[in-house]
Amino acid sequence: MPNTAGIIIIGNEILSGKVQDANSPYLCRELRFLGVELCRIITIPDELEIIAQHVREYSNAYTWVFTSGGIGPTHDDVTIDSVAAAFGHKVILPPRLEALVRSFYGDDTNEAHLRMARMPEGGALIDTPPLQTPLLLVENVFVFPGVPELLKNRFSLLKERFQSDPIHLRQIYLSANEGQIADVLNKTLDTFPELMLGSYPALWNKDYKVRLTLESRSESYLDAAFSHLQARLPQEEIVRVE
Amino acid sequence: MPNTAGIIIIGNEILSGKVQDANSPYLCRELRFLGVELCRIITIPDELEIIAQHVREYSNAYTWVFTSGGIGPTHDDVTIDSVAAAFGHKVILPPRLEALVRSFYGDDTNEAHLRMARMPEGGALIDTPPLQTPLLLVENVFVFPGVPELLKNRFSLLKERFQSDPIHLRQIYLSANEGQIADVLNKTLDTFPELMLGSYPALWNKDYKVRLTLESRSESYLDAAFSHLQARLPQEEIVRVE
Repeated sequence: MPNTAGIIIIGNEILSGKVQDANSPYLCRELRFLGVELCRIITIPDELEIIAQHVREYSNAYTWVFTSGGIGPTHDDVTIDSVAAAFGHKVILPPRLEALVRSFYGDDTNEAHLRMARMPEGGALIDTPPLQTPLLLVENVFVFPGVPELLKNRFSLLKERFQSDPIHLRQIYLSANEGQIADVLNKTLDTFPELMLGSYPALWNKDYKVRLTLESRSESYLDAAFSHLQARLPQEEIVRVE
Repeated sequence: MPNTAGIIIIGNEILSGKVQDANSPYLCRELRFLGVELCRIITIPDELEIIAQHVREYSNAYTWVFTSGGIGPTHDDVTIDSVAAAFGHKVILPPRLEALVRSFYGDDTNEAHLRMARMPEGGALIDTPPLQTPLLLVENVFVFPGVPELLKNRFSLLKERFQSDPIHLRQIYLSANEGQIADVLNKTLDTFPELMLGSYPALWNKDYKVRLTLESRSESYLDAAFSHLQARLPQEEIVRVE
């Protein structure tokens, strides 16, 4: 079975259009590059019950879950409590995290700052040097900050652990419309049922009208399917292949 | 009860990072402007059972559901069948849609093109002049194309029907860190429990460090909450208010 993933974006600011989600587009590209099959992306509000329910459901369904957001010091930061609730864990204040927060805020450290030192009991702290703050992992759920720069620098330091069998890709660009080639695509899928075949119109593109993407975890299977399809497409409509 | 919405983005091309979703950021902003409370955005693969399940669930949960993608002529376009399955409707080929497709493709019209003339029985076709092709509405589910230009021009012609009680917004920009003001935010929420209050750090911003957003459907409630909070924040940390 391939490794799978679900992404949970937590934040009213995304749902209300105040901030555009930059994390899921980044994670989509990275996970594909790593060969991980991303199955769901969901954006949900800052509400404990809703977050806990999705964390539980996605944790059961996928190899890895990535959450983003809701781990700051204010009232709307409820991700830690939600992840703890999802698995029935208590929330604790481990000395290591408390010391980290106190060293950062010094004499100004208050109760709100210390909220950022809380974690679900049984969670693991993953060190990502040279960054000082560790990343929280609870079961198979990686708890990322919502700030895109912080998510990206943590993910990029961790990503080797998600390396899976690569997904190979070839592409065909056509000047035909999708309807003209639909039958050829269907017949190719009859012969190569395991092929991941995408067909994407580009209505206002001057260069091509349809992009076909062919993917497989087997390079030889992909090559065979690619040759099969390429030979059956109307040759005069092929703009280029990649 | 305020009007609510759920967005279902359908497409392997988004999950695999080949195409970045431009439709949900657009709909987020538009729906907020219209006063609609957006509760979920989910991106799911081109698979009939998964689409049908989410359409059914979201249709029951929210005032309106917006789907995007999967209505073209190829094998991976399964949204029409999925929406029909969600409500237990048959798929029909209404003469009006068939005529539209035949007038567009002329003598080249084939079975694949005619897939685009199919719709669930009992669905409504909404005309959006000057556009020639009507938009499909099934129960409370608006079935939009995935191509961003096509979604935007249809939604913009329809949006008046979603006009709801407006959500009023005020903002405060601060040079403080979130932890310093968390206590004041909590106390404001004790006094104004209906206030929608967001706190968003801007770690690398030179102008301010935190943006507070205060929202309410009642302008007078918002004004009272705004004055209450503004007076209790450290005055020297307020960069500006909006």
